[in-house]
Amino acid sequence: MAQSPKAAPTAPADDSKDRHRRILETAARVICEKGYEGAGVQDIAEACGLTKAGLYHHIRSKEHLLVEIMNYGMDVFEEQVLSQVIPIADPVERLQTCMAKNIQLVTHGWSKEVTIILHEHATLTGEARAQINSRKKRYVRFLEDSFAEAIRDGRIRLVNPKVAAFAFLGMVLWIYKWYRPDGSIPADKIAQEMTHLLFDGLVFPERKDGKVAPRRPRGAREKK
Amino acid sequence: MAQSPKAAPTAPADDSKDRHRRILETAARVICEKGYEGAGVQDIAEACGLTKAGLYHHIRSKEHLLVEIMNYGMDVFEEQVLSQVIPIADPVERLQTCMAKNIQLVTHGWSKEVTIILHEHATLTGEARAQINSRKKRYVRFLEDSFAEAIRDGRIRLVNPKVAAFAFLGMVLWIYKWYRPDGSIPADKIAQEMTHLLFDGLVFPERKDGKVAPRRPRGAREKK
Repeated sequence: MAQSPKAAPTAPADDSKDRHRRILETAARVICEKGYEGAGVQDIAEACGLTKAGLYHHIRSKEHLLVEIMNYGMDVFEEQVLSQVIPIADPVERLQTCMAKNIQLVTHGWSKEVTIILHEHATLTGEARAQINSRKKRYVRFLEDSFAEAIRDGRIRLVNPKVAAFAFLGMVLWIYKWYRPDGSIPADKIAQEMTHLLFDGLVFPERKDGKVAPRRPRGAREKK
Repeated sequence: MAQSPKAAPTAPADDSKDRHRRILETAARVICEKGYEGAGVQDIAEACGLTKAGLYHHIRSKEHLLVEIMNYGMDVFEEQVLSQVIPIADPVERLQTCMAKNIQLVTHGWSKEVTIILHEHATLTGEARAQINSRKKRYVRFLEDSFAEAIRDGRIRLVNPKVAAFAFLGMVLWIYKWYRPDGSIPADKIAQEMTHLLFDGLVFPERKDGKVAPRRPRGAREKK
């Protein structure tokens, strides 16, 4: 079964794709704990229950392993979030669904350490770094384009699409820093509240005829 | 004048507090570049233009240096943001000013690497970690309390104060990951847009008599 160990602790151990995924998640945990420089290939092998030679059967090098962890994080994100929402025609619905799905991924999804490595490890250089950055930028562009489309369609008030995109990302991605599965706020409540926080002030209310009733621009005087 | 090297490149070199600050900022840059495990005391000394023995004149140990960098980051934040806004009586004005000041600090303030270390380095353990975490939590509590106060005062709609506090923090602190001083959006424009993004959907509009006109609760039907 192609799921993370957390989601499917009973997954069969002989599925090689699944086994590779478990190696990436375990390596991510070791790297987060010891730092990339501090985590030896020996440490990672031990945590995976493998010999060093056994681990090299699955990975090319420690740097390549780091690239693989990041690409794995992006794969899961694109599969579970981006590809699900791209087909949604209405830009506001697209953005709101995207926020909910991304929050679900950050709170329920694949191992937290993969997320940390994806967003906090600047250890990559050269081509590998450029490749991961271009995958991240694709998401930023998608958000910017959706905000810009929502403005053009008269669905939301005028806002800088880039600032809105990064506000969205900051709200969603900061969650992995504070969310605890056993905490006081369930994940779906967080998704609901965050969506209201970002969109309630942006979206124009719909009129009964289904058309949008544009609000006065910010700062305009109330009519006498 | 006690400012960061970026802000005051001509600060007198013989000011010992200033010199210590420059050591912390330089060390932060080396640690960000090489990773905490990868950055040797020798590397840090060289970057500071000191011998290893010379550096040990200023620092106790590498771990203590990391604690110092984090405490320095928190000192600057508390001095330039938190202590400035705590006296503001109105909770909405307090939060909005706090957001603007924190964005100013993240975009213009002390070295970016200090921020990265403050928010991304989980290398600390034990008492040092607990101490830094309690300083960070103080800020979260301040935000939560201010949102809760704004709700009680009827200044903003009902929202989970904890989610609102972390939405605020995510929007503001994610900025260090994408903001470029030579980028297309000036820092004050970011502050202005972010403040509108978070507060426009929260704050009840004021009536002409200066009193607040509560809006319908979310999901309530428009009156016929």
